[in-house]
Amino acid sequence: MSVKNILFIMIDQLRWDALSCYGNPVVETPNIDRLARRGVRFTNAFTQGTSCGNSRASIYTGRHVRSHGATWNDWPFPLDEWTLADYLQPLGPKVLLLGKTHMKPDSDGMQRLGIAPDSPAGRLLANAGFTAGEHDDGVHPEGPAGRYTPEITQYDRYLREQGFDGRNPWLEWANAAEGEDGSLRSGFYMENAHRPARIAKEFSETAYMTNRAIETIDAQGENPWCLHLSYIKPHWPFMAPAPYHDLYRGCEMPPPVRSAAELEDPHPLYREYMKLGVSRTLSSLEKRNHVLPTYYGLIRELDDNLGRLFDHLERSGQADNTLIALTADHGDYFGDHWLAEKDLFHNPSVKIPLIIADPSQAADATRGSICDDLTGAIDLLPTFIEALGGSVPDHRLEGQSLRAWLHGDAGAPQRSVIFSEGDYGRLPVAQQLGVDPLMARITMAFDGRYKLVHCLGLPDMLYDLHNDPDELVDLGRDPGYAPIRQQLRDQMLDWSAGLRNRTAVSRERQQALNGLSRRQGVLIGVWSGAEVPEELQPPREVGVR
Amino acid sequence: MSVKNILFIMIDQLRWDALSCYGNPVVETPNIDRLARRGVRFTNAFTQGTSCGNSRASIYTGRHVRSHGATWNDWPFPLDEWTLADYLQPLGPKVLLLGKTHMKPDSDGMQRLGIAPDSPAGRLLANAGFTAGEHDDGVHPEGPAGRYTPEITQYDRYLREQGFDGRNPWLEWANAAEGEDGSLRSGFYMENAHRPARIAKEFSETAYMTNRAIETIDAQGENPWCLHLSYIKPHWPFMAPAPYHDLYRGCEMPPPVRSAAELEDPHPLYREYMKLGVSRTLSSLEKRNHVLPTYYGLIRELDDNLGRLFDHLERSGQADNTLIALTADHGDYFGDHWLAEKDLFHNPSVKIPLIIADPSQAADATRGSICDDLTGAIDLLPTFIEALGGSVPDHRLEGQSLRAWLHGDAGAPQRSVIFSEGDYGRLPVAQQLGVDPLMARITMAFDGRYKLVHCLGLPDMLYDLHNDPDELVDLGRDPGYAPIRQQLRDQMLDWSAGLRNRTAVSRERQQALNGLSRRQGVLIGVWSGAEVPEELQPPREVGVR
Repeated sequence: MSVKNILFIMIDQLRWDALSCYGNPVVETPNIDRLARRGVRFTNAFTQGTSCGNSRASIYTGRHVRSHGATWNDWPFPLDEWTLADYLQPLGPKVLLLGKTHMKPDSDGMQRLGIAPDSPAGRLLANAGFTAGEHDDGVHPEGPAGRYTPEITQYDRYLREQGFDGRNPWLEWANAAEGEDGSLRSGFYMENAHRPARIAKEFSETAYMTNRAIETIDAQGENPWCLHLSYIKPHWPFMAPAPYHDLYRGCEMPPPVRSAAELEDPHPLYREYMKLGVSRTLSSLEKRNHVLPTYYGLIRELDDNLGRLFDHLERSGQADNTLIALTADHGDYFGDHWLAEKDLFHNPSVKIPLIIADPSQAADATRGSICDDLTGAIDLLPTFIEALGGSVPDHRLEGQSLRAWLHGDAGAPQRSVIFSEGDYGRLPVAQQLGVDPLMARITMAFDGRYKLVHCLGLPDMLYDLHNDPDELVDLGRDPGYAPIRQQLRDQMLDWSAGLRNRTAVSRERQQALNGLSRRQGVLIGVWSGAEVPEELQPPREVGVR
Repeated sequence: MSVKNILFIMIDQLRWDALSCYGNPVVETPNIDRLARRGVRFTNAFTQGTSCGNSRASIYTGRHVRSHGATWNDWPFPLDEWTLADYLQPLGPKVLLLGKTHMKPDSDGMQRLGIAPDSPAGRLLANAGFTAGEHDDGVHPEGPAGRYTPEITQYDRYLREQGFDGRNPWLEWANAAEGEDGSLRSGFYMENAHRPARIAKEFSETAYMTNRAIETIDAQGENPWCLHLSYIKPHWPFMAPAPYHDLYRGCEMPPPVRSAAELEDPHPLYREYMKLGVSRTLSSLEKRNHVLPTYYGLIRELDDNLGRLFDHLERSGQADNTLIALTADHGDYFGDHWLAEKDLFHNPSVKIPLIIADPSQAADATRGSICDDLTGAIDLLPTFIEALGGSVPDHRLEGQSLRAWLHGDAGAPQRSVIFSEGDYGRLPVAQQLGVDPLMARITMAFDGRYKLVHCLGLPDMLYDLHNDPDELVDLGRDPGYAPIRQQLRDQMLDWSAGLRNRTAVSRERQQALNGLSRRQGVLIGVWSGAEVPEELQPPREVGVR
């Protein structure tokens, strides 16, 4: 059967190694594992941006961060960055969104071009090109400066309908617990991670979005669809409904990947990241091991819900014509390397799970296999385009289709280096280092063994994952590794020069222009008519051709 | 007096050394020299793009070629590339265009956003942001595939009104001569360069556009204006009206800058450029010396017309409050290095004349001075913004204001390297070399002594202008210069990482966001309420803050 629909599942802040199919010794993810058995599991997949926003913008546009310019969360991307929906909709499916994008429209640009927010173009730009569905970026607290998200979400309305009343049900019910004294205990305080959320699991954000996915798919009837199902959890606040809050409590947690030597004379940028409050909190083994079971519980909750969704697709027969891709926008250090959150390029942050199950017969040979080649989130969009029978407009897209890997084709193009980017200009880190927020750029080049991080205005970082798979020794200032660094820098230079900035002219359009101006009379550098065929000669009499 | 108006003169394909104030031994340009005496003459100025289109796009956007993406002639730039008019109009002047831009709108992008060509936004995008004036790209032949420019120009209508009738007066009168037998002799054939055009000099393109400039300025009355006066000549067709066709004929032409050694084992890209028909034609000393006097004549014609314009400004008193900038989009090899036209990065192509006369009192100290620092065409827009009292939005603009040089301020920021870019994907050169047209990118880094050209997928070129000011010896493959090349490559890598891709967020907007999300309740990585001030605490009772 060929691919009719696409289910593109994004899981926010899911570490690549926090799934049982990727070897996690604690958390069990039988449904995601089931997906991996139906498809190909990529073991060397990397995000192109290590924050929520730049990662997603790269996935939606199929382009590297410096090409689309949305370098951080909620940074608008340029009006003419085409997105997933622009490419896939012409191939058949309605392209739907449920959940997070972390994208905002470029309101200045819209004003310049007279695009009203409530016009069709305005609505297109407001939701990263998705024209229908439910956009919910998943974090909705409030404080003295007002609500973080100005508008009430559909999930909030849903919670109210279920009787979870209050100013802000997301904050007061779904992401809060109750103390022994009956007071609210905020999910934003990690000390509360062991407490169950104030809602039953049936009403959690994960369950709600899964319900919405099932409804949305059903509502499409026989029409083709592409659903981008973009979950917020296991992203913080780390608060899970029962029984997930408690499922892995008491289990032995895997030890954090770090060494005391990392604290001695670290790279200046790394040092500043280690100083962040969140890094200090999760560097405490006790605190980390208090929160990690909740993170695992949230992942298990997600897996259970995906099980419901996969079952539904199987029951409705759609599993047979739906390509399913599952990935994360980035990981979470969770105390590894004395860090938390993401942004830098150690594997706990930059490496992502990536599973693609292609229902077509051509993919039967690869079911349950793994692929160790270097791949990236940027490869998803070209893969989707090819799965739907389109051809990849590579004057815009910078990734490569994974179809050859899914179909087990010989001669799949090998990638020699994969790149990823970050922008720390919004973080206190930049100020501490005296780095201009416009120049706070970091770029990773990983060739499968060596991982170079180019830090503009600061020394490089370098890791040798062959001899140091845990990335504990930074060779970025080691003179003996200068040739290795130089080689990766040269590859980065070439990469930057070859990015697809000339987006407005396709290969086909360029082809059509070949020789045209000559046939329109533009003769460059010609000495005399003897060099020009008769039909291209300029006029020799006034008014006559 | 402060700056009220800006006259920004662009001269197409004018070599930096083809003006008497820049030392040309043949051509006399007394009026441009007069401008230089009123202002600062920059002797180390470079274009950021070595074709008409990418150079102009960099000037209008204030951004490098890989940032705006209009890498070649008529390649549309993205819809949300802001241009000169967007920046200057809010500071007071109406921003007017007369002449060439070599820009086309991105019709696909406009269609996607529902922007009709005849809407205000459509008109803005059609003319590189200029909203008024006369857009005329200056080359209007026709052939079996029709007219090169679909629409009849105002200049064509003007010629017809003057009695120069015919299908295409531009082609048949202004850029044609008459043979002894009464037949038309095309300006596209260089053999005809010694013949006078069929129109008197009063009706030439240069005279016409100068007339239009005078009328346009007068029509503004007391209102401030910025006029981009963008001449086509001395760009080919090389055909001048009398007496300019003959003015320098018989003079001793400066010898071409080249050596026989350049023909031995040249860089593959250089070799292919040498093979182009136009290079072969102008590498013939005889043919070159037949055409060069016409090129010089066209420059002298331009200078005479600029004299009329400058006189008019002086008579009307506007010289006292009008900043005048004069530059070129790129040069013309004209047989130097066995090449013709432009694209590559030897000085005859990439170096440009740049003269800026600031009428304000603050600039009195620098009148008639020269500046040898590294500057670029990309610096014009920030200079204009500051001249009009604005501040430079450096989250978009990548050049630096030259005001400090114009005012003789101490501590003007020094540029250590200047960059320029090219895209040869449209030329047969790419095909000959087997280079993917999307990857046919060349980038120059010049530090004042060494000039590196990074050729994606091909070896570097390198010139040492200290020991080899004529750039006759390519050190790009000389092992002894590997450290020099590496240093410039590293500077190019840093440059590419620091380009302003995050255009949608100004410094001010970023500043305003600092700490905001925390005051909206986003508490990241906090263990307990003990770490959070009372006012930022999440709710402890349902529905109450």
